[in-house]
Amino acid sequence: MIVQHELEIRTNGRGIYDISRDVQRFVGESGLKLGFCQVFIRHTSASLMLCENADPAVLRDMEAFMSRTVPDGDPLFTHTSEGPDDMPAHVRSVLTQSDITLPVRDGRCALGTWQGVFVWEHRYAPHTRRILLTLQGD
Amino acid sequence: MIVQHELEIRTNGRGIYDISRDVQRFVGESGLKLGFCQVFIRHTSASLMLCENADPAVLRDMEAFMSRTVPDGDPLFTHTSEGPDDMPAHVRSVLTQSDITLPVRDGRCALGTWQGVFVWEHRYAPHTRRILLTLQGD
Amino acid sequence: MIVQHELEIRTNGRGIYDISRDVQRFVGESGLKLGFCQVFIRHTSASLMLCENADPAVLRDMEAFMSRTVPDGDPLFTHTSEGPDDMPAHVRSVLTQSDITLPVRDGRCALGTWQGVFVWEHRYAPHTRRILLTLQGD
Repeated sequence: MIVQHELEIRTNGRGIYDISRDVQRFVGESGLKLGFCQVFIRHTSASLMLCENADPAVLRDMEAFMSRTVPDGDPLFTHTSEGPDDMPAHVRSVLTQSDITLPVRDGRCALGTWQGVFVWEHRYAPHTRRILLTLQGD
Repeated sequence: MIVQHELEIRTNGRGIYDISRDVQRFVGESGLKLGFCQVFIRHTSASLMLCENADPAVLRDMEAFMSRTVPDGDPLFTHTSEGPDDMPAHVRSVLTQSDITLPVRDGRCALGTWQGVFVWEHRYAPHTRRILLTLQGD
Repeated sequence: MIVQHELEIRTNGRGIYDISRDVQRFVGESGLKLGFCQVFIRHTSASLMLCENADPAVLRDMEAFMSRTVPDGDPLFTHTSEGPDDMPAHVRSVLTQSDITLPVRDGRCALGTWQGVFVWEHRYAPHTRRILLTLQGD
């Protein structure tokens, strides 16, 4: 069994968005019991992350760390045509993930208790992000 | 053919643990000849890494680099309820991997000669880490 | 359907090499319509990256960022037997990817418009890098 579905996520600009429920819903509706759910973001200025899903402070600290490590408007960068968040968005994407494969067990993604799937929008402006889900298994 | 197996790794606190042998053993026993072995860690304060497997100094340097880049007790962090290693553990996990897919060829994961699969425990305290292995192929 | 193919990429030393065309060609010739194309690099001093594929300045900035974040010859490192780029190459590999899974749709990897697949050679010297492509699906 192979099923594919494109998810559209509308972001409100830079921030971290939990898509765990969307992913689990698609797996549940597909009827897949055992196998993989692959999550792929078709962009290079927004990315995917598996992270703690309980305390909102974790996501704020994650953003604070990334902002310090990859500063907006860093004079190191020459690719600045779309603004001070342009090149940092590409670097942040490379330091995190664009593809995540989740194991499916008993008809659900076998995430840990405190593990969520997130889209990280790295641009200031709102965007529509296309995420391709592909299931394979029995 | 799809087979799934949960591996439990008992860590002695922060450090890097080679699980290549466990992964290869499971692939060998499954009888899978061609396909994928997916490794997934069900935690957000320990992670997975593919890294050089010959010189222990590589793993020490890796830890030294990460400790400097994501300092324990960094005043930037507000999510500190479990101690100075709490939020750094989440950041380290995001900067490395939670899911790794290995190609299987001739009944073995086709790792390079110097390539090992590691669990990186980021917390000071010992933990039991659950790792889900999922094989798919012929 | 499962097909595997080893790609050899000859690098001219440190730099970023676009392999999108090689990957798409293999998928096209395989006849796979729906499923996965998994890309795996069998080395720990060169890695894989999904990144913007239009402006060469993005790749230069990416290299500049990584050179600053993981300095060659950093006195922190003790694993230096092969030179000042030895340990940094391992760290850079861990901060990026060694395995990437791409969804296949309509007979092609469903990359975004501006998304390319790259090999990042982290060593100064030219190397031959072996990349294993594994396709699974219908």
